[in-house]
Amino acid sequence: MDKCIFCEIVKGNLSCYKIYEDDETLVFLSPGQDVDGHMVAIPKLHCKSILDCPESAMHSLMNTMQTVSRHCVEACAYDGINLLNANETSAGQSVNHLHFHIIPRRSGDGLDAWPAMHNHKYTLEEMQKRLEMR
Amino acid sequence: MDKCIFCEIVKGNLSCYKIYEDDETLVFLSPGQDVDGHMVAIPKLHCKSILDCPESAMHSLMNTMQTVSRHCVEACAYDGINLLNANETSAGQSVNHLHFHIIPRRSGDGLDAWPAMHNHKYTLEEMQKRLEMR
Repeated sequence: MDKCIFCEIVKGNLSCYKIYEDDETLVFLSPGQDVDGHMVAIPKLHCKSILDCPESAMHSLMNTMQTVSRHCVEACAYDGINLLNANETSAGQSVNHLHFHIIPRRSGDGLDAWPAMHNHKYTLEEMQKRLEMR
Repeated sequence: MDKCIFCEIVKGNLSCYKIYEDDETLVFLSPGQDVDGHMVAIPKLHCKSILDCPESAMHSLMNTMQTVSRHCVEACAYDGINLLNANETSAGQSVNHLHFHIIPRRSGDGLDAWPAMHNHKYTLEEMQKRLEMR
């Protein structure tokens, strides 16, 4: 079975540019270098996506995203944050270990962190009927 | 002071296409209709962003995102989920009440939920020095 590269990073078998770490979570720079400061936040516990993540690991990850977001704004001269996440291959998930991308933002940085998505076909009424939880 | 439109939705003063609700959180269809099934998940408690959200509200919101994500995959024939979030105007936040976008995905739906972001300028070493929490 192929090893999970994020688990290998957690174990120290692969290196990373670490930004933050606690007992439950790890945040490191994305090696892709598409955007300066692009970080990846993961639970140390292996889970594939939001679909199978235990509650305690999700909560720790959320706390860590808040901690790092506040640090970016309060200590690193950023003034906004995007949190982006893909679950399962169909959504564009490339590493099968739950991760959120943290993108620090600055006014006028010229980024557009909202993806271009235009394939609306059904009405809101139809979609509510399809998705509503009762 | 302008009223928060998400708080007005929580209070029932503005209508929405509700998908899920519990004591702490609400999920409704985005009226924008850019992508079928585009939902918005919010804490009922008003906070502006991830920066000022109390821990319990964040945790409830994460639980709700998992609940709705599982529902989409297990009961609505989707097979993936994107979770997207912007904090503060610089990041593209348009309503000043913390919210995550939930985009249900299906293999081959033709969406690209990853934004086009290419403004890398500094090395990973430089960015680690800037962002690292010690």
